[in-house]
Amino acid sequence: MAEPVTTFVPGHVTGFFSACRRDDPTRSGSRGAGVTLSDGVRVSLAPGTGTVLNGESIEVEPVERVLEELDVEGRIEVETTLPLGSGFGISGAISLGTALAANVVFGLELTENELVAVAHRAEIRSGTGLGDVVAQARGGVPIRIEPGAPPYGRLDGIPDRQRVEFVTFGELSTEAVLSGDVDGVTTAGERALQTLLEEPTLSTFLRASRRFANESDLLTPRIRDAIDDVRETGGDASMAMLGETVFALGSGLTDAGYEATKTEICPTGAHLTAV
Amino acid sequence: MAEPVTTFVPGHVTGFFSACRRDDPTRSGSRGAGVTLSDGVRVSLAPGTGTVLNGESIEVEPVERVLEELDVEGRIEVETTLPLGSGFGISGAISLGTALAANVVFGLELTENELVAVAHRAEIRSGTGLGDVVAQARGGVPIRIEPGAPPYGRLDGIPDRQRVEFVTFGELSTEAVLSGDVDGVTTAGERALQTLLEEPTLSTFLRASRRFANESDLLTPRIRDAIDDVRETGGDASMAMLGETVFALGSGLTDAGYEATKTEICPTGAHLTAV
Repeated sequence: MAEPVTTFVPGHVTGFFSACRRDDPTRSGSRGAGVTLSDGVRVSLAPGTGTVLNGESIEVEPVERVLEELDVEGRIEVETTLPLGSGFGISGAISLGTALAANVVFGLELTENELVAVAHRAEIRSGTGLGDVVAQARGGVPIRIEPGAPPYGRLDGIPDRQRVEFVTFGELSTEAVLSGDVDGVTTAGERALQTLLEEPTLSTFLRASRRFANESDLLTPRIRDAIDDVRETGGDASMAMLGETVFALGSGLTDAGYEATKTEICPTGAHLTAV
Repeated sequence: MAEPVTTFVPGHVTGFFSACRRDDPTRSGSRGAGVTLSDGVRVSLAPGTGTVLNGESIEVEPVERVLEELDVEGRIEVETTLPLGSGFGISGAISLGTALAANVVFGLELTENELVAVAHRAEIRSGTGLGDVVAQARGGVPIRIEPGAPPYGRLDGIPDRQRVEFVTFGELSTEAVLSGDVDGVTTAGERALQTLLEEPTLSTFLRASRRFANESDLLTPRIRDAIDDVRETGGDASMAMLGETVFALGSGLTDAGYEATKTEICPTGAHLTAV
């Protein structure tokens, strides 16, 4: 019996995006930008069945799709300190971690690009995410210039590294938002991307994200208040797309009196933890 | 006066390659594959002049070209335990680290892809490397499917992670080999890449690299002996392109009685060390 194989996948907070839907799920996805976080997800896989998150049985539709496309069965144990449904790309992280681990456990001999594409397609088909997987595979501060998984998607990045804080007030359903009318989101997202590419820095990323949150009508009152609080104390913050989560650079939320979780930009993309 | 900014760039050992020369240096480079190493190079940059490696003044042509293209002057301090001229991509690492650090120190507002392209062009123009920079920017076990820097080059990777050992017997001049007749190298390199893409695993990478070293006539007698020794004790090894260095997976060299340096595949590409 094969030993379990463990992977780490960083969390990913999208600041802004525009949805790109095509018939081919590998070519579908989003343009946009976000930050990957050193707080992430550990995914262990061994032969067997069932998915367990922090000790409790769950069902994650894209993970089932990953296993189905790879034609394997696995017992998946997930550990994370990040909250579900709050804009950290957890479903994408579990899907990608599952694909990377299954490749080793079952000797599938797929490349990284192929495994990223499997996890990306699973997210697209499940409606649970559009750009987390490709960002989480890369690490850093990914800019999604062209949508989709390899070989179609195209990424760049902001070459910076900073501390990040966040506070989560509750969940938002990615599926519900993505299945609705996203024309306003798309217009705002395309404009934000253009702004960022003209001046690819973290502070421009925050500014473009904030404007996107406003223009896209996705901003909730609690998040708006928290962003205002951070800005009043000289910091910068925006909303995680899609979750009722506010994130800030440096110590922005702590400085504004919030009890925030502290993390940092993760320089490393998804990878096997063992050597 | 700006504070120095420090970057880390992994070492990179190429197992096989085929050279691709075009008029545009951004499109030039190599196809091939290699492993990035957790042993790498720390590059600090501050305003000033001069390059210092492990405390001694040196001149690194591609680094001068990076500074020239970015139109800045910098004092560069490099620390590494890896030997120069021995197939670890040190010139590429210093060039890439310099570009990433200069971007922060001088507020250049370039993206990661743009900085990778600057360092890649500098290596191509200096004749000091063809594919190290794009591999070192990525980390892991990069497969260079299409030559060149972003947006032209295309990479994939072997999603595995293992310990690596190496022994260096001496230097080989990359410039001298690359400026000679490389037709035999190209034929052998294209065949090796095809072999690897059919079965993208670390053991196939080693096998394809060994065959490439033989067919390309780059294998030196000392490296041949060391590879034979490792294989006789059940391990697997090949030659670093281009240096008189043998590298092995796991504890292959130690098991064969060599006093080898131990490192591992680096899951992280080039990045700023500070947060």
